Amino acid sequence: MTGSDRSLPERCRPFGQSFESSVMPSPRISPLVANLTAPPIPEVQAWKQDYPGHLGPLIDLSQAVPGYPPHPDMLRWLGEAASSVAMAGYGDIEGEPELRSAYAGWISDLYEAEIRPAHIHVTSGCNQAFMAAMMTVAGPGDRVMLTRPCYFNHETTLSMSGVTVDYVDCEAENGFLPRPADVQAMISDGVRALAVVTPNNPTGATYPAGLLQELFDLCRTHEIWLFVDETYRDFLPFDSGPPHGLFAQPDWQDTLVGLYSFSKSFCIPGHRVGAVTAGPEMVAQIAKVMDNLQICAPRPPQQALTRAIPELGTWRRHNTVEITARSAALTKAMLGAPGWEIEALGAYFAFVRHPFDDLSAYEVARRLAQETGVITIPGSFFGAGLERYLRVAFANADVATIGGLGARFSACSG
Amino acid sequence: MTGSDRSLPERCRPFGQSFESSVMPSPRISPLVANLTAPPIPEVQAWKQDYPGHLGPLIDLSQAVPGYPPHPDMLRWLGEAASSVAMAGYGDIEGEPELRSAYAGWISDLYEAEIRPAHIHVTSGCNQAFMAAMMTVAGPGDRVMLTRPCYFNHETTLSMSGVTVDYVDCEAENGFLPRPADVQAMISDGVRALAVVTPNNPTGATYPAGLLQELFDLCRTHEIWLFVDETYRDFLPFDSGPPHGLFAQPDWQDTLVGLYSFSKSFCIPGHRVGAVTAGPEMVAQIAKVMDNLQICAPRPPQQALTRAIPELGTWRRHNTVEITARSAALTKAMLGAPGWEIEALGAYFAFVRHPFDDLSAYEVARRLAQETGVITIPGSFFGAGLERYLRVAFANADVATIGGLGARFSACSG
Ligand SMILES: Cc1ncc(COP(=O)(O)O)c(C=O)c1O
Ligand SMILES: Cc1ncc(COP(=O)(O)O)c(C=O)c1O
Repeated sequence: MTGSDRSLPERCRPFGQSFESSVMPSPRISPLVANLTAPPIPEVQAWKQDYPGHLGPLIDLSQAVPGYPPHPDMLRWLGEAASSVAMAGYGDIEGEPELRSAYAGWISDLYEAEIRPAHIHVTSGCNQAFMAAMMTVAGPGDRVMLTRPCYFNHETTLSMSGVTVDYVDCEAENGFLPRPADVQAMISDGVRALAVVTPNNPTGATYPAGLLQELFDLCRTHEIWLFVDETYRDFLPFDSGPPHGLFAQPDWQDTLVGLYSFSKSFCIPGHRVGAVTAGPEMVAQIAKVMDNLQICAPRPPQQALTRAIPELGTWRRHNTVEITARSAALTKAMLGAPGWEIEALGAYFAFVRHPFDDLSAYEVARRLAQETGVITIPGSFFGAGLERYLRVAFANADVATIGGLGARFSACSG
Repeated sequence: MTGSDRSLPERCRPFGQSFESSVMPSPRISPLVANLTAPPIPEVQAWKQDYPGHLGPLIDLSQAVPGYPPHPDMLRWLGEAASSVAMAGYGDIEGEPELRSAYAGWISDLYEAEIRPAHIHVTSGCNQAFMAAMMTVAGPGDRVMLTRPCYFNHETTLSMSGVTVDYVDCEAENGFLPRPADVQAMISDGVRALAVVTPNNPTGATYPAGLLQELFDLCRTHEIWLFVDETYRDFLPFDSGPPHGLFAQPDWQDTLVGLYSFSKSFCIPGHRVGAVTAGPEMVAQIAKVMDNLQICAPRPPQQALTRAIPELGTWRRHNTVEITARSAALTKAMLGAPGWEIEALGAYFAFVRHPFDDLSAYEVARRLAQETGVITIPGSFFGAGLERYLRVAFANADVATIGGLGARFSACSG
C-alpha cells in the first residue's frame, strides 16, 4: 500500500489528513496511519503555555470530562478491587459476568427493553467499543456513513482501518441533526453501517426518539448496521423517559449496535471501561477482535462498576442536574459575548459560532486560547465546512467559571 | 458463534480459518473477522467440565500465567493508585511520564543501551502493543512475516487487519529457531516486517543474541521492521547478560520495535499494561493509532508499576528461580511418560511431542483434558503442520503439581 502523495483538498485541516502531511511521511509507516491527523486534544493543549494569564486562570473546555471527582464510595471500590488477588488474573474476553449482568439490568430498565448479559461486551472504553464493533462489520474497502460534524475518533478509526467514510451533513438550520432523506441518498452498495452519536459530540444535539426510529427503519430496510454511540446518555434530563425505543424493537439485534462509556457518568476515564450492546452472535464475533486488541478490559474497574451501577443512581442524577446548570450558565454567559452564538447545546457540549468572517476555526480557537486562556476545539477538527464553529466542552468547568466566559470570548481579537 | 457440529477441514484447525467456516458466515459480518478462529483459550477451557476428576484436581496448563499472586506491596500500590482522584482522569496517550521514565531506565540497564522515555509507548497489554505498532507499519494488502509455530494472536491480529501473513517455518531439528536464510528467501516486495517472539510462545525456544543480530541485519538491509516480542524476557536466567545487543546498535530505531508485557513479570494480567520500545517518530505515529484504539492505557496500574519496577527486583528474580525449578520438574516428570518428548523448553513453555501417530493434536489435547484433567493447547492452534505437538504452559502449576504430570500424560489414551 503506497500512496503518501495523495493531494490535499482545499480545507485547512481536512479530516483524515495530517497537518504534517507536507512533511513527507516515511515510506516505512503505513500511509493509512501516516496520513491521519495527530490526536486533537494534545494539539490544542499545547496552546496553554502561550497564554500570559492576564485574564485569570486557564479555562480548559477542550476535553469532554466532568470537572468533578468520582464518588468517594467509587474510589473505595476501585481501590478494593485493584488490590485483590482475584482481579489480578486474566478475565473473560466479553467482560466480567457480574458487570455484564448489572449493566444489562440497568439499561433494560432505562430503555424499557429486555437486554440480557449475553447482549453485552465490555470494552476498554467507548473508543474501543466503536473500533472493535466496527472492525467486526466493516473491513478495508467497505464504506461507513458518519454524520458530519463527526466525532473525530470515529473518523480516524475508520480511516486507519482502510474503511471509506461517507458523510451525512447535518446543518445548523436543522439543529445539526441528519435528515433521513440525506441518509437514504447516501446509501450505496459498499455501505455496511451508519454511525450516529446522541447526545452528539461535538454539537450537543440530542436525537429525538422519532428520528432514531426513522434511521433504524432505514437501516433495517437496507440491511446495514446502525451504531448509536450514547456516551453522554446519562446527561439527558432524567424525567423524559427512555432515550429511544430501538432496543424494544423486535429483532433489534439484526440492525442495532449500542455503544456506551463509563468514563463520563462515573468520572473514571483513567480506568478505561465501556460497553457494546448487540446480539449474542455479534458479541461472539466482537470477542474475536477484542482478544487481539486487548484480551479483556481491565478487571478491577469492572468489579467496582458492578457495585456502582445500582448504588450511585442518586449521585448520577445529581450530576445531571449540575451539568444542566452549567449549560444554563453558558447560555447566559454567551449573551455577554456579542457576535458569538450558541448554535446547538446539550449534554457536555455547545457548538458555538464565532463572529469572524475572515478567520478559520483553527485561527479563532488558537487566538481564544493564547489571548484569553480558554481552550476549545476548532469546528474544522470535526469535518470540512465547519470553519465558523468552536466546540465548547463546558462540563469541565463549574458554574462560577462559566460565568466569566462572556468576558473572555469578548476579548478574542478578530 | 454456534458450532457443536461444525465439520472439520482436512487439517484439524488451519490457521486464520474458522472451524465455523463451513457454516456460512453472515454477510453482514466482515469476512476478515467471520473467518477468524474463535479465541483458543476459552475453547480448550470448555473441556474442563468433561473431566470426571478421578486422577485428582484439574491441572490447567493452557494459559500463560504465573501460578502465584502479585507481591503484597504491588497489591497495595495498585489499590492506592486506583482509589486516587488524580488517576481517575484521562492520561497521556503515550503513557504516564513516570512509567515511561522508570521503564526506560530499567531496560537501559538490562540491554546496556541508552533508551529514553521518548522511546516508550505504554499500551494496554502486549497484544495491544503488537496491534498498535503493526497497524502503524502495515496496512491492508501488505505482508508481514511470522515465525511458525506462531503466537496465535499475532496471526489473527494481522488477518483481521487485512495483512497477509508469510510463514517462516521453524523446525524441531533446529530447536524451533528460524534460519536466517529461510527468512531471506521469504522477503518480497510487499513485506513490511518480521515479528519474532523470544523466549518463544508456544515453544519456549530462546533466540541466541547472535541469531537476533543476524535477523536485525537482514531486516535493516531490506528496510523492513523487526518486531521482537519479549513478553517472557524476565524469566531468562538472570546471570546471562543482556538478552541481545539490538538496542545498542546505532540507528536501531530505523529497524527495531520492542514489545513487552507487564502481565507475567508482575502477575497483573487483569490490569492490562504493556509497552512498545521504538524510535520517537514511531512512538508519535503509534499514538495516533492508540488514540482510536483506547485513548490511553489504564492509569492506576501504570502508577503502581512505576513503584514496582525499582522496588520489586528481588521478588522478580526469586520468581525466575521458581519458574526455572518448575521447568526442571517438568523435565523430570515427563521421563515418567513413555513416548512423550519435550522438544523445546524455556521461560513459561514446553513444546511436547505426543506419541500417537494417528491422532491430531486437537484430539490428543482433548483426550488429555477429558481423560486426565490436564489442559494444554494443541500444536495445530499455532499453525499448520504441528499435529504432533502440545503446548504446555507450566508456569501456572507449582513443582509438586508438575511432579504428578508423568502419570497423567501416561493415562491419555492413544
Ligand atoms: C462520542 C464519544 N464516544 C466515545 C468516547 C470515548 O470514551 P471512552 O473514554 O469511553 O473511550 C468519547 C469521549 O470523549 C466520545 O465523546
Ligand atoms: C508472546 C506473547 N505476546 C503477548 C502476550 C499478551 O500479553 P498481555 O497480557 O500483555 O496482552 C502474550 C500473552 O500470553 C504472549 O504470550
